[in-house]
Amino acid sequence: MSAPSYAPGSATLIDIRSFSDERGALAVVEGESDIPFMPRRLYYLYGSDPSRTRAHHAHRAERQCMIALAGSAEVEIDTGRERRTFLLDRPDRGLLLEPVVWRVVRMGDAASVLAVLTAHDYDPDDYIHDYDEFRALVGTP
Amino acid sequence: MSAPSYAPGSATLIDIRSFSDERGALAVVEGESDIPFMPRRLYYLYGSDPSRTRAHHAHRAERQCMIALAGSAEVEIDTGRERRTFLLDRPDRGLLLEPVVWRVVRMGDAASVLAVLTAHDYDPDDYIHDYDEFRALVGTP
Repeated sequence: MSAPSYAPGSATLIDIRSFSDERGALAVVEGESDIPFMPRRLYYLYGSDPSRTRAHHAHRAERQCMIALAGSAEVEIDTGRERRTFLLDRPDRGLLLEPVVWRVVRMGDAASVLAVLTAHDYDPDDYIHDYDEFRALVGTP
Repeated sequence: MSAPSYAPGSATLIDIRSFSDERGALAVVEGESDIPFMPRRLYYLYGSDPSRTRAHHAHRAERQCMIALAGSAEVEIDTGRERRTFLLDRPDRGLLLEPVVWRVVRMGDAASVLAVLTAHDYDPDDYIHDYDEFRALVGTP
């Protein structure tokens, strides 16, 4: 299987391979195959307050794949060219985020789990926390 | 942070770093840091029938970290030296499984999600599906 291609600054929904039988479902994400990078980290959000949003940043180099493993999450993205809101609400769908994309995440409820595979180790210098700086970087349409 | 050490054929519970604030919780697993390998795959079990078990195999080389991201999962392991049953029921706890460990997994309910990070790509030849073969490999106490 070849890795999906994408444009920089993009947000792309992908299908995730899932196999069901009488025992239940198993879904799998292979690095550099199902997603275009090898994961170095897995992080996940859970026990969230759905009345609050989080993220509110972009990354300079970080690449991510977000998957709602339980419940749902709304991911509002801004690439500089467009704004879109993705509802992630099934374990066999992922959202690939390529730099540089501003994102705001709202979890569906306290039982929702959003898993995020990342291409890089955590690096505080990779974050763009200032929206004006983000706009300057991607240009204003 | 140094990678945890372990013996071959071992099953070890690890704490996973989790950060909570008014928005909710975020837990993170960094490859070769929080777990002793860099993940190549993430797979996850969901929508499971709790009256059925799955797995019933050991791996020759595969190394895994299992985490119950939602609900719970019982993981019964057999190293050849001991049998133990682990109840995974919190997102900030992981179970490291080093080869060669026979494992049987029972999911808590249909809403439970068990995430598994693996050190290797999928390889059907890495599986030991026959319990007698497993016992011959690890020796009988």
